Order: sequence, then C-alpha cells, then structure tokens
Amino acid sequence: MTDVRPKQDRSRATRQRLLETTIRCLATHGWEASTVGFIAAEAGISRGAVQHHYRTREALILGALEFMFEERAALLDALPEPTGTGPDRVHRVVEGLVEGIGGELFKAALQVWTVAAADPELRAAVVPLERRFARGVHERAVRLLGADDDDPEIRGLIQATLDLARGLALADVLTDDSRRRARVVRAWSVQLTSALSAAD
Amino acid sequence: MTDVRPKQDRSRATRQRLLETTIRCLATHGWEASTVGFIAAEAGISRGAVQHHYRTREALILGALEFMFEERAALLDALPEPTGTGPDRVHRVVEGLVEGIGGELFKAALQVWTVAAADPELRAAVVPLERRFARGVHERAVRLLGADDDDPEIRGLIQATLDLARGLALADVLTDDSRRRARVVRAWSVQLTSALSAAD
Repeated sequence: MTDVRPKQDRSRATRQRLLETTIRCLATHGWEASTVGFIAAEAGISRGAVQHHYRTREALILGALEFMFEERAALLDALPEPTGTGPDRVHRVVEGLVEGIGGELFKAALQVWTVAAADPELRAAVVPLERRFARGVHERAVRLLGADDDDPEIRGLIQATLDLARGLALADVLTDDSRRRARVVRAWSVQLTSALSAAD
Repeated sequence: MTDVRPKQDRSRATRQRLLETTIRCLATHGWEASTVGFIAAEAGISRGAVQHHYRTREALILGALEFMFEERAALLDALPEPTGTGPDRVHRVVEGLVEGIGGELFKAALQVWTVAAADPELRAAVVPLERRFARGVHERAVRLLGADDDDPEIRGLIQATLDLARGLALADVLTDDSRRRARVVRAWSVQLTSALSAAD
C-alpha cells in the first residue's frame, strides 16, 4: 500500500512511532535490552534512519521521555474542567493525576532514573526534564483542584498528592496493584477534599 | 592485629559487612557495576569466600535485601513508643516511617526492582520479600499510630502514608530532596492527625 500522506506527515508519524516504541521497550524489556538496534527493529524502522535523528541511545531515550511527558501534560490539559467542590471532583482529579504520572511512561522513566542514579552525565540530562514535567503536573493539579497554591499547607498537600502518585506507580511495577490503588486513592481524596474545603 | 573474637562472631561480622557493602554498592554504583567481584573487593573479602555463602550475584543481592529489610524493621521496633495523640506524635511516626522506607536501602532496592521489572525469575524472588517487608512496616505503622486498622478509611490512609513514603524516597534518588520532603511530611502529618482523631 502506498502511503499517500504528505512526506512531512509521514515523517512525523514515523517519529511518533519510534518514540512510543522506545517507551514501550524500556517499560517492558528494561534499559539493558533497549539498544538502538532493538528499538529500531521493534518500530520497523532502519537503524540508520533512527541514528539520523538520534545519534546515541541516550539521545533517543531522552527524546522519547520528553515527547511522552508532553503527551501526558496534554492529556491532563484535555481533562474536562471538573465542576463542583465535593469529594467527587477531587476524586476525579486525583485519579487523573495518578493515571498521568503512572503507567507505562512511569515504568520507562524508572529505568532511566535507575541508571541515572549511578551515571552523573545521564543524571544531568534527566533532572531538568523531570523537573519541568513535575512542575507542569503541579500547576495542572492546582488548576484542576481550584486550590490556593499560595497557602503553604495546601501547597504541601498537593505536592504530597503527586508524591503519593509516584509511590503508587512504583507499587505497580512488579505486580498489578490496581485494586489496592483504587482504595488508597479514594481514602486520600476524602482527606484532600476536607483539607481543601477547610482552607476555603 | 589478631582478631580475638570467637570464630562465630567474626564470621557473623564478616557476613554483615558483606551484606551492607552489597547495599551500598547497589545504591551508589548501580546494578550493572555490582558484580560479586566488585562487591567482594569493596568489602575486603575474597571472591571465593563470598561465593562460598552466596553462589550467585542474585543470591547475594537478595540476601542483602532481606538482611537490610530485617534491620529496618528492627529500627522501627526500637522507636520509643510515642505518647500523646496530637500532631507531634503523628509527625514523629510519619518521619520514622519515611526514614525507614527511604535512604540507601531504598536506592539499592530500586536497582533490584528495576531489573526485576524485565526479569520474571528475579521478580518471582523479589516480590515475596518485598511483600513481607511492606506488611511488616504496615503493622508497625498501625501500632505506632495507635490506629484502628479495621476501619477501611484509616487502613487506606495508612497505606497512603507508606505509598507517600516510597514516592518521597524516589524523589530523593536523583537530587537531594530533604528540604521539600520535610515540608510534605509536615503537611501530610497534619491531615493524618485530623483523620485519626475524627475516627476515634
């Protein structure tokens, strides 16, 4: 079948497939297995074409993380502006944040963080990327919760919610933790609701 | 200098040094660098002596994790039984849990979890170990907080506290997060205090 899309669209689609495949390879097969050759084969792209855009494995992996962080941020932006102030609204937002932070992207990022923990050069490249993503998620959390981020107590609780989300994502790496996670998210949402309404 | 301790004490001390060195190597140098040869050299023990007790790298690393999990549980048990019911008590307990879950042991465990994520055999060995530790920490948290673990809301919040502790530990892997962590722990403790006293 001939691809009739303009060349630029095709190359954008190819790039997206490559970066999504990179994330999937990292999450499923781990850092060591995720070489440029393996990822290229999984994506059905020649190794040379990959290296034309990303000269090293690190560049490819960091490019994939950045791309996915942006996708996740866009997903959070696309969440319908929640209405009401009750526990249902807070619960929906916390669920959205936990979903946005966790899943396959988290599993891929975990592989990178773990290697970066013992590799100062990789760490120096990962930290600013990770900070930008964390800041973006925090801002979105504040907006979605309609919270007052200038109140240090509320600010601390929103940060705690994002740390909780990362802890929950970690608990899901080795076993399926979704049922327990749903209970924990509910219990925390009740608390967060009462803290937010007390601060109003 | 001649070591005059009984042979059994010496061999226990050697084993402890080996296992502590294994954790430190994993936390500082990562999984790939932490071979039996490297760890043995760091501990000042012959490679043969290490392999006499732990035939494979996996056995050594799992032995080290188990040993450290027990040490951490013993540290939690040694915490003075906190008195009072106010925010100070809860704050001290949450700080103790965050410390018990985080730090060097967490960094070492993270290396193992990350490799286990893509290695079913290692995962099968790590999951029961990790479950036992998590259950032990949960029981100690319930006791130290004097909480009613049969109340599903309270149970959820105690689990959330331990998930938060893991999320905070993760945030400390690539950069020193201690100042932010102290603020998050304070904000969380205030909420947990009010939830626990409302349930009384």
